[in-house]
Amino acid sequence: MKEIHAYQMTAKDKPFEQVAFPMPEIAEGEALVEVVGCGVCHTDLSFWHYGVPTRHELPLVLGHEISGMVLEGPSELKGKPVIVPAVLPCGECELCKTGRSNICQKQKMPGNDFNGGFSSHIVTPARFLTPVPEKALAAHTLAELSVIADAVTTPYQVIIKSDLKEGDFAVVIGVGGVGIYAAQLTRIFGAKVLAIDVDQKKLDQLAEIGVSATLNSRGLDIRETKKKVKAACKEMGASPFGWKIYEMSGTKAGQELAFALLGIAGTVSIVGFTLDKLEVRLSNLMAFDGQLIGTWGCKPELYADVINLTAEGKLKLKPFTETFPLSQINDIFQQTLEHKLLKRSVLTPDF
Amino acid sequence: MKEIHAYQMTAKDKPFEQVAFPMPEIAEGEALVEVVGCGVCHTDLSFWHYGVPTRHELPLVLGHEISGMVLEGPSELKGKPVIVPAVLPCGECELCKTGRSNICQKQKMPGNDFNGGFSSHIVTPARFLTPVPEKALAAHTLAELSVIADAVTTPYQVIIKSDLKEGDFAVVIGVGGVGIYAAQLTRIFGAKVLAIDVDQKKLDQLAEIGVSATLNSRGLDIRETKKKVKAACKEMGASPFGWKIYEMSGTKAGQELAFALLGIAGTVSIVGFTLDKLEVRLSNLMAFDGQLIGTWGCKPELYADVINLTAEGKLKLKPFTETFPLSQINDIFQQTLEHKLLKRSVLTPDF
Repeated sequence: MKEIHAYQMTAKDKPFEQVAFPMPEIAEGEALVEVVGCGVCHTDLSFWHYGVPTRHELPLVLGHEISGMVLEGPSELKGKPVIVPAVLPCGECELCKTGRSNICQKQKMPGNDFNGGFSSHIVTPARFLTPVPEKALAAHTLAELSVIADAVTTPYQVIIKSDLKEGDFAVVIGVGGVGIYAAQLTRIFGAKVLAIDVDQKKLDQLAEIGVSATLNSRGLDIRETKKKVKAACKEMGASPFGWKIYEMSGTKAGQELAFALLGIAGTVSIVGFTLDKLEVRLSNLMAFDGQLIGTWGCKPELYADVINLTAEGKLKLKPFTETFPLSQINDIFQQTLEHKLLKRSVLTPDF
Repeated sequence: MKEIHAYQMTAKDKPFEQVAFPMPEIAEGEALVEVVGCGVCHTDLSFWHYGVPTRHELPLVLGHEISGMVLEGPSELKGKPVIVPAVLPCGECELCKTGRSNICQKQKMPGNDFNGGFSSHIVTPARFLTPVPEKALAAHTLAELSVIADAVTTPYQVIIKSDLKEGDFAVVIGVGGVGIYAAQLTRIFGAKVLAIDVDQKKLDQLAEIGVSATLNSRGLDIRETKKKVKAACKEMGASPFGWKIYEMSGTKAGQELAFALLGIAGTVSIVGFTLDKLEVRLSNLMAFDGQLIGTWGCKPELYADVINLTAEGKLKLKPFTETFPLSQINDIFQQTLEHKLLKRSVLTPDF
């Protein structure tokens, strides 16, 4: 064990190349983590296929949804299973000290600022590594828990920001790899949840986590969709005011629908990203006393709460994840690109 | 004193007509208030000239920025000077009970749902009338204090909602009749305030209240304006993050600028209203972890705080208000329409 083995990205759309690096010295404040699982996120595809540049120049090892075992680093973490937050803030700046560490401008992201999780090991800032308690490993493997970094914590943060309360009517637009957790978490928070998607297969998955109100909006225009949402709200006995809308699709159509659903005292959360602009009447926010909030990642301070939800058996990751050997990375990226995989893929090192 | 004398609106753009009504019986929960002053608001012009329909059919007495003396009603208010909140919620519904009374769907607004303040007296729901302490009458007449209802409280509420903190960089776009109080209040909250307008006369007024950083954006495009705002922020030693932008102009250009100024951890508050839509990239909210909030009126529960600010000598209304006899209402509306009056007009009954 004198080397780190990894698959690195060398250029857009090129197969990941297996490489080996000499095992580095760990500096003060760093940790060496043996990777157990690393989730494949849409952001990885953005780097690999859609032309979004990584902050660190290529070649680079991608992957930012990482779980693993701490081999070296702070004594209190050594030998422990951890989640590596997808956003590692500095912990010292004005933003970090005012509760906005997720948007820290000195933040480091594995697989973007430095070599990430499609690797046997990573060397990472140690400060915000989040220990995984024994109890959380009863229902899930440590590899499965890797998706907590990003896919689960991002919707968790926005739900906290949106001040979701028990009994609120929550509408989740887009229940893909991240949205599925938005649907699940809003339900755990006690909301009356309606999930909207254009893919029936994705909606069908929700039955497993007790979200029975779904709406397939394929072929419906915004007016028709809105009518159906109102009817669903009424049927579920939820309030016509204070709706919490979560836009997870990252599409123009999804954002247009989300904005159209903003009503009295409503909150629209923008979580999915698209470069597309849309035409909106911002004054609706005034007329409805409403708000639009955006969220970037999740501050590491919230990770423990999410891990606890899995430990308590409330939050289920297993039905929505599938693990593959890391050596299949090229095949898995291709299949993900072609939307062939319904579940989120977690790659486990097999060097 | 057996009649109420008033000027009522009969039709769009027609002169207000002097009328007299028999003094009505006061029902349980109501109060009879002798009007001392009533501010002329842009909303009144919307009804009278711009074709916005009043909720109660015409003829109707307009006016919703009202101060006066309680003649009849709850014993604890009788004989006392009060402000009549522009928005009178029911106090009992779900929205009222969850701190959102300003958007109560059963709310009544004087001069919109029932006869308003361009009158010798009004009959109004008594519940949320806000007493004016003696101390507040030292620096201002009761008539001048009328502008607290709406012109001052609306920006106050949005400042609270936006969580403005001491030292924050606050940008106020549009310092007209309402925006001037946004500038003044943000300064009272300890923010580093930059006021933007296209009218130098309005900006010049700000010196009186200690807001020295102003920017006349006439002729500047958004990019140039943004550059100057950044420079001002730096010069004032404020943080480049967490800007609080207050859009008070109610214009498309103002909203476009406000959205363009949204940066890391920023908050844009939409207070001015326009029917115009604009093209925006909503995903910026995600990338910046930012938010857009709208505000409708102000909940009466906050009025006492604002009155206290005047009582403590912190908030100054006098430089920005001018009182006229109510009999000049037709002339004053015409001049307001033609933008001939720099200060907010308060009409005092002179029957």
